[in-house]
Amino acid sequence: MFSCALIQSRAGDENERVDLYDCKMKWAVVLLACLCFLNSLVECKWKHERRENHWRENANEMTTSSYREDPPDHTKLIPMARYVLHNADWASLATISILPAIEGFPFSNVKSIVDGSLANSTGVPYFYMSPLDFSARDLSKNSRATVLVSLEETRYCENKKIDPEDPRCTRLMLSGKMKKIKERTPEYEFAKAALFERHPAMADFPPDHNWFVAKLKIAQIAMVDWFGGAKYIPVRDYLAYNYTGTEMLQFRNKGLQK
Amino acid sequence: MFSCALIQSRAGDENERVDLYDCKMKWAVVLLACLCFLNSLVECKWKHERRENHWRENANEMTTSSYREDPPDHTKLIPMARYVLHNADWASLATISILPAIEGFPFSNVKSIVDGSLANSTGVPYFYMSPLDFSARDLSKNSRATVLVSLEETRYCENKKIDPEDPRCTRLMLSGKMKKIKERTPEYEFAKAALFERHPAMADFPPDHNWFVAKLKIAQIAMVDWFGGAKYIPVRDYLAYNYTGTEMLQFRNKGLQK
Repeated sequence: MFSCALIQSRAGDENERVDLYDCKMKWAVVLLACLCFLNSLVECKWKHERRENHWRENANEMTTSSYREDPPDHTKLIPMARYVLHNADWASLATISILPAIEGFPFSNVKSIVDGSLANSTGVPYFYMSPLDFSARDLSKNSRATVLVSLEETRYCENKKIDPEDPRCTRLMLSGKMKKIKERTPEYEFAKAALFERHPAMADFPPDHNWFVAKLKIAQIAMVDWFGGAKYIPVRDYLAYNYTGTEMLQFRNKGLQK
Repeated sequence: MFSCALIQSRAGDENERVDLYDCKMKWAVVLLACLCFLNSLVECKWKHERRENHWRENANEMTTSSYREDPPDHTKLIPMARYVLHNADWASLATISILPAIEGFPFSNVKSIVDGSLANSTGVPYFYMSPLDFSARDLSKNSRATVLVSLEETRYCENKKIDPEDPRCTRLMLSGKMKKIKERTPEYEFAKAALFERHPAMADFPPDHNWFVAKLKIAQIAMVDWFGGAKYIPVRDYLAYNYTGTEMLQFRNKGLQK
């Protein structure tokens, strides 16, 4: 605008019309340049937003799939106990050792477990066992066992920055006697299918290891899920509790979509 | 250009100079618009790249910090055993229960552990214990115990899609007798500092629970880290192995930078 006024003031009569054109065109140039610049900015921002939304969606997807449905409130003892067992892929199985160097010592082994199919929790831990393994050998002499599972396994405690030994990082100890399940019974078929569903690697376990399916007949349920010491849950109420645990199926399906 | 030619052909002599200006200015408008558009595009692309690089850097950081240095080769038994213990934040501790309902049963509990400071592994598992806890009560009657740790805890098996019971998901079972460490000894100070370094939550554990530091005097080391059954590692060689485990310090520092 200043430059335009300057041109006009300097212009003589003979050049007045030319300068007016000149001035108008300069205005047009400035206006067009501004419009063009604004347009580019808007377009650029739109592209940014699309890209950022794409990243955010991906980030959410990753976050959602690496988390699962949160555990129940700590005051709901039975729902919590059933959730922790159903959401755990493995347990440490304590037995009385028959190894010569540590005979009679308590021993502990990692076992992949299920408590039913992904969408049909029973509360009973099932195992796929070989007589070649520590646990089965110990159990053949003394069937007493404790099955320990912890919310640490679901990454809940890590994600919430709760120490593994913090009582809020719920741990469940099921004690009782281990029992082999008869083949060709509905329970055997159900449990084996559930084990292979949750642990597809089991289909590739060496076929000559005389695998069998076993379960824990629960005698005592101890749980630490909050401050103030362990709680003991009546076994009958625990087993009777109506809970399918479909969140595990959703979690697994999310994981497969990744 | 076409519109410019059209204007020139229609123009009379008296308007020729004006139209020439008009034409030149239109050229300038087009040129300026093009330059402006190109500039915006370049600027936009540069901003995109900066933003994308920022995202990529964050993503890499997250990926790197959620992994740690891979375990040693499975044929290197002692390095593997020491790695698995040092990289585990918690263990399941098997004891013989004194609980009335399951007296004499093997029991298992979650304990947060260290085997030395983050950058000074010893191979000996240390515990922070309270006489109010299951484990300490059991151990006061029978000090025999097994400490179980698994590579599952480091997320290695999950990341490699190895089932928790797969023998390649290394598990280490240290059996022996648990021993309380005398206060005001160098070992006590070292172990307590190491426990509080790895598990800062311990500083907030209730002060009236008579906490003490204990360690496992290892009698037997069993490890499953590959197909073909468990291996037994000589305790003396295991303890003498020169390994500081500084990868844990690096891993922890990476985590803190997040």
